Amino acid sequence: MTLRVDADRLAHQLQVLSTFSSAPAPAVTRIVFSAEDRQARAYIRSLCEDAGLTWREDAIGNFFARWIGDDPSLPAVCTGSHIDAIPNAGMYDGTVGVLGALEAIRTLQASGLRPRRSIELLMFTSEEPTRFGIGCLGSRLLSAIADATVGDSLRDRDGSTLDQVRQAAGFSGDLATVALPPGVYAAFVELHIEQGPLLEEHGIGLGVVTAIAAPASLRVTVQGDGGHAGAVLMPNRRDALVAAAEIALAVEGAARSTGAIDTVATTGVCQVFPGAVNSVPSRCDMEIDVRDIDESRRDAVLARIEAACSDVAARRGVSIATQLVNADPPARCDATIVDALAASCRDAGFAFEPMISRAYHDALFMSRMTPTAMLFIPCRGGVSHRPDEYASPDDIARGAHVLALTLARLAG
Amino acid sequence: MTLRVDADRLAHQLQVLSTFSSAPAPAVTRIVFSAEDRQARAYIRSLCEDAGLTWREDAIGNFFARWIGDDPSLPAVCTGSHIDAIPNAGMYDGTVGVLGALEAIRTLQASGLRPRRSIELLMFTSEEPTRFGIGCLGSRLLSAIADATVGDSLRDRDGSTLDQVRQAAGFSGDLATVALPPGVYAAFVELHIEQGPLLEEHGIGLGVVTAIAAPASLRVTVQGDGGHAGAVLMPNRRDALVAAAEIALAVEGAARSTGAIDTVATTGVCQVFPGAVNSVPSRCDMEIDVRDIDESRRDAVLARIEAACSDVAARRGVSIATQLVNADPPARCDATIVDALAASCRDAGFAFEPMISRAYHDALFMSRMTPTAMLFIPCRGGVSHRPDEYASPDDIARGAHVLALTLARLAG
Repeated sequence: MTLRVDADRLAHQLQVLSTFSSAPAPAVTRIVFSAEDRQARAYIRSLCEDAGLTWREDAIGNFFARWIGDDPSLPAVCTGSHIDAIPNAGMYDGTVGVLGALEAIRTLQASGLRPRRSIELLMFTSEEPTRFGIGCLGSRLLSAIADATVGDSLRDRDGSTLDQVRQAAGFSGDLATVALPPGVYAAFVELHIEQGPLLEEHGIGLGVVTAIAAPASLRVTVQGDGGHAGAVLMPNRRDALVAAAEIALAVEGAARSTGAIDTVATTGVCQVFPGAVNSVPSRCDMEIDVRDIDESRRDAVLARIEAACSDVAARRGVSIATQLVNADPPARCDATIVDALAASCRDAGFAFEPMISRAYHDALFMSRMTPTAMLFIPCRGGVSHRPDEYASPDDIARGAHVLALTLARLAG
Repeated sequence: MTLRVDADRLAHQLQVLSTFSSAPAPAVTRIVFSAEDRQARAYIRSLCEDAGLTWREDAIGNFFARWIGDDPSLPAVCTGSHIDAIPNAGMYDGTVGVLGALEAIRTLQASGLRPRRSIELLMFTSEEPTRFGIGCLGSRLLSAIADATVGDSLRDRDGSTLDQVRQAAGFSGDLATVALPPGVYAAFVELHIEQGPLLEEHGIGLGVVTAIAAPASLRVTVQGDGGHAGAVLMPNRRDALVAAAEIALAVEGAARSTGAIDTVATTGVCQVFPGAVNSVPSRCDMEIDVRDIDESRRDAVLARIEAACSDVAARRGVSIATQLVNADPPARCDATIVDALAASCRDAGFAFEPMISRAYHDALFMSRMTPTAMLFIPCRGGVSHRPDEYASPDDIARGAHVLALTLARLAG
């Protein structure tokens, strides 16, 4: 089977997609349900229509575009990723897996293939936790890991509920209808940039993912006493920020304490109230991310952070509330899909290596309902979630090529 | 001299003034040059017109309302404070010294007094450092401690210069014209809530301020490396927030290290970029406030903080820039004005005590150009810069009463 991926077209469409951003280039900021997100969705939709795909959207905004196979009654082969982007991010995270999947489908169409199973592009809503504090909202709902109660329970920083925000963006259906029935897909494959340095360091162009690390996140609210920075004497203070500072250092220390290279923990958010130079901080809202390929080791880190919060609260006389937002198990990828990816790499003559995904992806949740694996391509310096995130057009095209071969193989 | 301060009118007008706020009651947020600030200014202006005062505004928005004396050629007696409020503040900080001064003038007018010197109410612009990072902007310019270059050099968080913002608010004159000529005032007296607990603890209704502590503030920018919170391994991190956490704890430690009760240091602002739970913080912008009644001891604390920044930068491989925004000397109040305040307390039969102001005020800068002192009234629990800041109508009226007697005494 000879395939001709159009690397230039793919690179150009990634470039166009990056312009739907509320931050100036090269940074990309595309918060779910924002104007930029809606414009980017419309662009993807138009490209899918150009490719003759049949599309639908569900109540959370997950987008499904299907190339109907010769036997539409069979479970489809699914591929996809996301296009939302955290503040000040780059242009490849997620997008390579959406436009790369579309390019793979177009390449297969051009090759004259008539797949037996349908092949479906799935673009997930809100992979990033930026707006609602929890990642992979779309795939959590699809796989019934989350249920419709999130529509009312999740709120953004402005206090709007998920239901209010999605309805304002035009997605007004019942969230209970998002979960997919079992057996709808035969396989799920996600193409993604590595977001780590290994492929580049090893000089290898493709990574076949065999497992996805277990993510967790924690919201911590520190409530102290405010007051005038000149007038409240040091012994009388219950300063929320210095308490939060001790917690941020405890988060770092807890990750390092395992001695395992796969343990990471990050305080990514720390908002200070009232946030004036001459006012003692009365409250800090923190958001903490903890991951490990070993779930029990990750949970031990979470326990250490909780213990540090109790210690700081007692010692400083502040009150500290912690809320576990999510603590998901890791995923083992499906051996059949992993083998199909490896065989496709070999068929095309591309070197690859098996690897672990430290970042988590919609594939983590798709793996709960369907056989799943992922394909990684290198990104420069392992950098991601930054404006200087970069993947070369050749590496992206190579990923799309192997994805196309794999989809053809799985679609029979 | 028998004076009848109208405590109810004064309390009512403080209440009305508190409604010009971008935060819901009881909180008051009134950022300089905001819509709320402009509305509040218009209210004060109308009250001054009702009292028959002659007013003008200068290029930074300082507001002068004069009760013209029998000999207008003599230097005037000046009193006043500010009405801007930090985010989530209370309704008495500054406002008591503006509306209390107006009540004092109205009370003297009603008593039939004909003052020899003019008596002037001065409402200062931007006493709070919230918007431009430096406190007492209006009085710094009046007293020529700051010059017109601040119009272009100071910026708010949106990147707008002071000149752009003040001009948009309708203050378009040349900042070089704000500095007052020497000898324009014979005296300056500022009425203010204590913002500390001593008067309440001692059960004494009035404090005559003999000195004002020396304030300083520092901006610290920590620049590290961002990246994906799952993918950047702990040994490879240059996390700006954990570096900032160490600095915040060093700020607290530096203040405690002097062993002096009068030393205070606060990190009031710590903004984290990009501020997403799954992104390693790449930058933190911190604002730090340091005060002491002893200038050399305060400077030693600043030096300790600078040393901690160097240490953190070297140890963590982040770059840290520090900028000293202001480091002002303390003020000794003028003995003649202090005596006039004390004599007025005795005449009215009110207990008072001499005290130090740990907070700083426009009086600190007025003291550089004219004989100055301050009069404090109690506030509940010593609380200020918080929504639950409270001073009783009786205490406020007592302050206005003694202020009126003092103005009459100084105006001759």
